Amino acid sequence: MLQSSVAPRLLRALSGEAFDSPPVWFMRQAGRFLPEYRAIRETAKDFISFCLNPELAAEVTLQPARRFPFDAAIVFADILLIPLALGQAVWFEAGEGPRLGPLPEIDRLRAGIDAVEDILRPVSETLRRVRAALEPERALIGFAGAPWTVLTYMLRGRGGEQPEARAHAYAHPEAVDQLIDILIEATARYLAMQAAAGAQVLQIFESWAEGLPDDQFLRLVTDPHARLIARLRELGVDLPIIGFPRGAGANLTAYAAAVPVQGLGLDTQTPLAFGQLLQAGGKTLQGALDPLLLRAGGPALDQRVEEMLEAWSSGPYIFNLGHGILPDTPIDHVDRVVRRVSGR
Amino acid sequence: MLQSSVAPRLLRALSGEAFDSPPVWFMRQAGRFLPEYRAIRETAKDFISFCLNPELAAEVTLQPARRFPFDAAIVFADILLIPLALGQAVWFEAGEGPRLGPLPEIDRLRAGIDAVEDILRPVSETLRRVRAALEPERALIGFAGAPWTVLTYMLRGRGGEQPEARAHAYAHPEAVDQLIDILIEATARYLAMQAAAGAQVLQIFESWAEGLPDDQFLRLVTDPHARLIARLRELGVDLPIIGFPRGAGANLTAYAAAVPVQGLGLDTQTPLAFGQLLQAGGKTLQGALDPLLLRAGGPALDQRVEEMLEAWSSGPYIFNLGHGILPDTPIDHVDRVVRRVSGR
Repeated sequence: MLQSSVAPRLLRALSGEAFDSPPVWFMRQAGRFLPEYRAIRETAKDFISFCLNPELAAEVTLQPARRFPFDAAIVFADILLIPLALGQAVWFEAGEGPRLGPLPEIDRLRAGIDAVEDILRPVSETLRRVRAALEPERALIGFAGAPWTVLTYMLRGRGGEQPEARAHAYAHPEAVDQLIDILIEATARYLAMQAAAGAQVLQIFESWAEGLPDDQFLRLVTDPHARLIARLRELGVDLPIIGFPRGAGANLTAYAAAVPVQGLGLDTQTPLAFGQLLQAGGKTLQGALDPLLLRAGGPALDQRVEEMLEAWSSGPYIFNLGHGILPDTPIDHVDRVVRRVSGR
Repeated sequence: MLQSSVAPRLLRALSGEAFDSPPVWFMRQAGRFLPEYRAIRETAKDFISFCLNPELAAEVTLQPARRFPFDAAIVFADILLIPLALGQAVWFEAGEGPRLGPLPEIDRLRAGIDAVEDILRPVSETLRRVRAALEPERALIGFAGAPWTVLTYMLRGRGGEQPEARAHAYAHPEAVDQLIDILIEATARYLAMQAAAGAQVLQIFESWAEGLPDDQFLRLVTDPHARLIARLRELGVDLPIIGFPRGAGANLTAYAAAVPVQGLGLDTQTPLAFGQLLQAGGKTLQGALDPLLLRAGGPALDQRVEEMLEAWSSGPYIFNLGHGILPDTPIDHVDRVVRRVSGR
């Protein structure tokens, strides 16, 4: 236990340790709510170039840690780097979000798996730079999008069209299952590369888990996550993993039972009592403050933070938001919450 | 029990009776997937006039019952008739959905409550016509939007902006609570009028329950539903009530415990095992076939229908969709499912 007492608090929480002042980080903490992020963003010619520029990406990864006593930095990257590496065009329309070109033939995508590590090597370099600069008590998180979420973008060419992608999964089951297989392998190699480059925790972002009937949730979320993790273990990756199936609702029970993650990312609507059940089942919780409340601030924010600490900090818990921080969030709201939670 | 054996099967299910072939109806069954609906829709000058024309509204309410062995008809109307009656402009942009004018001052809205029954009297007339024409073994369902869902439209002027409305609820708690109070009273009077006009069941549509943290779910969904039902009982309405908090996720447990509904409408993502727990807790389930699967058809649809019947028909259960039927759903898919479920 001597070693664990000097390990970053985030890793200790993922090993099952509880803290009166739990470790804390915020999804999208390296992002537009920080003026220093916006200043650097302007120097990159486009968003993909920005993600694949280790100097700039490492700098924005480190920025939030300079301002706030966060317990972790998360590598600055994007979940759509995987389709890009597999050979599908990806670009970002200003103010509109990501756009993807036509879905390549399945054989071309499959052949693209072997190129993933080469094409995404700059993300490794970002991780190395960040790990070298980051204080040892802060953990470095690597991440990827989950196969289903990434597939919704690949099928529809943009975000926010999960129902249409779900319709496609009903209409073309074999093609979708093959695409999921390809994404599992590509994502496993990408995450293994991040682990080799210094990531100490891996998070799987399933941003579009909502609305899926339980059989489709099993097919498209639970089973691919479990297979992705099994493949990572095969590749020799022994890091703790956080699964974040946003919008899973009551399907979270089945997810927690079947997917061997150490950490369970919770979205804004996870009831406090439900989280306690998941904790009792052996998972470390991560979440789930409403980013809209963080932005709104005031006594309601203070009160909710106390309720969350009261409900969850007696078990293993990493304080976080239930979704990414909003670009127009006042910095002093972040400062107030992070200092309260961390006791620093 | 002699009387109950001749009551419509839908009402018997809401009294706790289980059927090998459960009663069935589909949300938005009076809608665009039917060519005879589209033909009538074209004759009305706008959507609001259509809803408030008892002759046309009664006709489209009855149309699906002529084609399919549905166990219920649901009055053709719209959840935005309440803000209209309270004095906020409401119109429908072709292909874009509803639009609302500026939110009136709160005192004007409150004063509008007394006008609700007069302005929405045509809905009563629709119910009377339908009840007179409908076979006695089919139940007639009245409905209204839940206060929070209606408020999201009133605050934002359109649908699909629940997060923005939630932000407003954080920023302006007193104003939002006053608006919820007004909507509870207006909706109670509207539903009581529907009961007096022949509705035998009332359904409360909470279309935007998703994403709410448990304290806000209690404040904006559970508590207003419970108060609405208490007010209905005060007004002498003793009909069974179905609550449909779409997207509630794990908050459904708290909802079922606190809101005295007889029927619980389930959305597409409610796990079958979770539904069984709710059934064991004394609720009649209603739902939850994925409309995207109904549209897709094929063996996967047949298999899912069997799974749902297997999981839920040993307890009180009304077969339905987990969301409204999609306009481009093939009629023979509907026919196939309804005949399988009803055994007719």
